Amino acid sequence: MGTVSKALNLLTHFNHGRLVIGLSDLTRLSGMNKATVYRLMSELQATGFVEQVDGDRAYRLGPQVLRLAALREASVPILSASRRVLRELSEETGETTHLSLLQGDQLASLSHAYAPRNATKVMMEDAEVLTFHGTASGLAVLAFADPGFVDAVLAQPLEARTAQTQTDPVAIRAELAAIQRSGLAQSIGGYEAEVHSHAVPIFGPDQVVLGALAVAAPTSRMSDDQKTAIPRALRLAGLALTERIGGACPPEFPTDIAA
Amino acid sequence: MGTVSKALNLLTHFNHGRLVIGLSDLTRLSGMNKATVYRLMSELQATGFVEQVDGDRAYRLGPQVLRLAALREASVPILSASRRVLRELSEETGETTHLSLLQGDQLASLSHAYAPRNATKVMMEDAEVLTFHGTASGLAVLAFADPGFVDAVLAQPLEARTAQTQTDPVAIRAELAAIQRSGLAQSIGGYEAEVHSHAVPIFGPDQVVLGALAVAAPTSRMSDDQKTAIPRALRLAGLALTERIGGACPPEFPTDIAA
Repeated sequence: MGTVSKALNLLTHFNHGRLVIGLSDLTRLSGMNKATVYRLMSELQATGFVEQVDGDRAYRLGPQVLRLAALREASVPILSASRRVLRELSEETGETTHLSLLQGDQLASLSHAYAPRNATKVMMEDAEVLTFHGTASGLAVLAFADPGFVDAVLAQPLEARTAQTQTDPVAIRAELAAIQRSGLAQSIGGYEAEVHSHAVPIFGPDQVVLGALAVAAPTSRMSDDQKTAIPRALRLAGLALTERIGGACPPEFPTDIAA
Repeated sequence: MGTVSKALNLLTHFNHGRLVIGLSDLTRLSGMNKATVYRLMSELQATGFVEQVDGDRAYRLGPQVLRLAALREASVPILSASRRVLRELSEETGETTHLSLLQGDQLASLSHAYAPRNATKVMMEDAEVLTFHGTASGLAVLAFADPGFVDAVLAQPLEARTAQTQTDPVAIRAELAAIQRSGLAQSIGGYEAEVHSHAVPIFGPDQVVLGALAVAAPTSRMSDDQKTAIPRALRLAGLALTERIGGACPPEFPTDIAA
């Protein structure tokens, strides 16, 4: 791995549970020696990617990432395009909706909307890294991802976050084949217990899968009506979002089911 | 400059006029040789910071920056906190409002709101880099920035974007002293002709200036009433935003004028 990749990989250790990371923790998390970590973080700091807090020994992400994100949105306006789609899908289904996007080899939730009508709802945090095998969004993405990428994901140890998480690569591959035919993924309690999620893939201009649009509902509220209504609304919203960002579904994607 | 800084500085060449940059242009803009640029961009690509478009020879920013921006917002929620402040300030003044933030040694506009009531308005683009000497926002930031930073900014060649841009460092220093006393900066046509802007600094938890909140109006609409109403509304909005992000004004900042 090159120096630049080493430095940028240090940034992947920040998450919602670790918004501020001390030099010692970063050394431990990265497996590099402390002098190297300090030197790389100093370069990231000089360019505004991180900033020091609590004196000299801890870091958080810096404001430079906001400018780059605004320019990425100007180039591929998926977050702004998704806001209305998410809000309308939440209103229609009465449930939490979210968009997740591939970032290198990770899938991260990046935008969400809550439905006002129910007192209980599935809570979301943006920038949470989702597992591919344990979430409807991850399965929707994998089903239409490059086969080499699928092999790499399934070759890694697959964590069981709940008792319902499917961790057998053979069973997961069978599920991916079914999702390729249906265009829709489901997960019942595979990531959070008591959550029933549906997800559809979102495609970019080159017919490559970019991420997934999902509806997450408490299992207790999944009536027979909702089991029909959510997939129907979600499929249409997914096609609308792909279209709104100038994307295109690959020829094998089953768009006719949505009609 | 270290390898990491060289790679990250390549990202600063992206802007609204250059959302996609070819390898040759990037080589020319950076002053580095093509093989080095290609190697650094390959590392940025492997980590999701850029992605290739139009075949192999051009790049745009990648989705990784969106995840980092969402985490930065979770840590210092200035964009989400500013949205309501910007909207209300636009409604109150009837003019365009915007927030700009320091990113390393640059000031970039990152969020804005338009007022619905006027057919003509000052248009904004997020992620535009603003000059310090030629904009009300830049002057508001400089007036409360570290003296060493001010020296570095004023030692550089100061571009005259319009015939009204002040480029004399001595005159600019006198203006900064006045802004320190008043807490409010103005620019009439210094960045865009026919635009009258007012700006106030925004401070973080450590009393350090983070950026500026501004109101930009067509000069033709700056009646005597507006010349009183805009500064008054802007000062209060600036103090409210500093407070909402958990920030604090330094003791020398004139908060009593806003009351």
